[in-house]
Amino acid sequence: MELQFLGTGAGMPSKERNTSSLALKLFEERGTIWLFDCGEATQHQILHTTIKPRKVEKIFITHLHGDHIFGLPGFLSSRSFLGGEETSPLTLYGPCGLKDWVIFTLQLTKTHLNYPLHFVEIHEGIIFEDDQFIVTAKQLEHVIPCYGFRVEQKPLPGELLVEKALKLGVPKGPMLGKLKSGEDVTLEDGTIVYSKDVTAPPKKGFVVTVLGDTKYCHQSIELSKDADIVIHEATFDYSTKKLAADYGHSTNVDAANIAKEAAAKYLILNHISARFLPHDLDKIIKESKNIFPNVFVANDFSLFHWKNGRLTEGNEDK
Amino acid sequence: MELQFLGTGAGMPSKERNTSSLALKLFEERGTIWLFDCGEATQHQILHTTIKPRKVEKIFITHLHGDHIFGLPGFLSSRSFLGGEETSPLTLYGPCGLKDWVIFTLQLTKTHLNYPLHFVEIHEGIIFEDDQFIVTAKQLEHVIPCYGFRVEQKPLPGELLVEKALKLGVPKGPMLGKLKSGEDVTLEDGTIVYSKDVTAPPKKGFVVTVLGDTKYCHQSIELSKDADIVIHEATFDYSTKKLAADYGHSTNVDAANIAKEAAAKYLILNHISARFLPHDLDKIIKESKNIFPNVFVANDFSLFHWKNGRLTEGNEDK
Ligand SMILES: [Zn+2]
Ligand SMILES: [Zn+2]
Repeated sequence: MELQFLGTGAGMPSKERNTSSLALKLFEERGTIWLFDCGEATQHQILHTTIKPRKVEKIFITHLHGDHIFGLPGFLSSRSFLGGEETSPLTLYGPCGLKDWVIFTLQLTKTHLNYPLHFVEIHEGIIFEDDQFIVTAKQLEHVIPCYGFRVEQKPLPGELLVEKALKLGVPKGPMLGKLKSGEDVTLEDGTIVYSKDVTAPPKKGFVVTVLGDTKYCHQSIELSKDADIVIHEATFDYSTKKLAADYGHSTNVDAANIAKEAAAKYLILNHISARFLPHDLDKIIKESKNIFPNVFVANDFSLFHWKNGRLTEGNEDK
Repeated sequence: MELQFLGTGAGMPSKERNTSSLALKLFEERGTIWLFDCGEATQHQILHTTIKPRKVEKIFITHLHGDHIFGLPGFLSSRSFLGGEETSPLTLYGPCGLKDWVIFTLQLTKTHLNYPLHFVEIHEGIIFEDDQFIVTAKQLEHVIPCYGFRVEQKPLPGELLVEKALKLGVPKGPMLGKLKSGEDVTLEDGTIVYSKDVTAPPKKGFVVTVLGDTKYCHQSIELSKDADIVIHEATFDYSTKKLAADYGHSTNVDAANIAKEAAAKYLILNHISARFLPHDLDKIIKESKNIFPNVFVANDFSLFHWKNGRLTEGNEDK
């Protein structure tokens, strides 16, 4: 799993930070990408990455402010243009009102998509579940309805303990595969070998919590409970906390408190106001680290790798 | 007058060319800018120029394809954010349907503009006129209704021939101003001095024709008749002319024929398909020059100066 930030600014694009979009790259897990928000020029940002629009399987929209959705029509159209003959379906999860706007916009511009576009209106609770993932949404506290998402990977089957199985008399061949996938098998002599006896215990999946624009609120803590990675907005810093309160936003300190109280493992600060220049970021991280140790600040194109329970920041080969 | 191209691509953004937008800079004439089309990320392109969104007085939309309008909501919102307390009004000229979409989009995203936004639905004929300019629209031939615009500057009052006026007995002072502005005056001795006798003949204003996406069509010739500058799409070249016909677009050769038949002075090729790479442009120009001599190809950020009846390409100090 990797996380790549496509837009990390607040409200308006600047030369340094585009409006919001985040790619959760699930290549190893399911060969696809999930986007969170799609600000204007998200498709332009994607041109500078290795992301292929047709690989985007789901888009989750936190709220209906322009800096989180104005890139949607262009992205959806270009995904169709670029996709080739058999472009896979795409599902759009968004607050009430999004579907009507997208349909109106595609109709106005006579845009005919070459793939099925499904809509799911977000409500509190589980909004997606399959055998690999559960996504839960909760409403946060912003000036308009805004959601956060907890993406939980389900436990992964434990490894097959091959030596142990062979010792119990399981012959090399298809029976090993059955045991690996959780099935018990009966040997030629009638002995039953139980899968649980020859596999390691299931591995915990990861939990990534992606929060939309919000004030400090308990819903953020609930969504972030024991999460591996929490992505929280930090539109303001401690010195501008009054503004944060007025506009339904958070500071870097609020974000750190959420991560701490949720007992999360890593925090990534996102949605950074253009008032902060690159040299301000050290201070922003420091203020957060006083409260919660494992903090990163997202920049446009920042790429984070999740491996063996550790999060590291690294570059992509373009 | 200057022309700056903000997006010169066709259909989708590429790394080299953004979707359509063109700025007609009328600083000397009226202290404002007029935009033609507003593809996604037009506001991002503007960040790399000296253009201030609050100086944009009018936006003309040629047609409702996404690559010509998806930057509008973001531009309108940011113009409000950036504008300060007393942001001047903006008028949006567009085909039927644009107004409803813009209003729907601003309402959905709870965007409250801090300036009056006026809408004018385009029809064939004069769509704007004041004491300086007349803008005429005609429908072109594309796959959906698409317009071209002829922007005519009205004749400029001729210079005052000061020596001649003084010789006729006009005293230095306010009478000279009246004569200059076209008023006749009566001297103390009762002699009438006529303005036309002491001013040079009015100077012809410029004519710029901005055409939307279209096949070769007679309406383009009519709009371009004797124009100083014609901006014509050239989505395809001669070798891909079959595609041009299929998709309601033109080739570089079509564009040159329009300029020639209209007896225009300069032609700028715009809306260039991403299939053409920088090294293809020489050939594209050459093919056009075989038909019409004064041809330029627009690139993103190309800046053209109009001075003393000549068009030159130059850079902007950033
Ligand atoms: Zn936001
Ligand atoms: Zn176009």
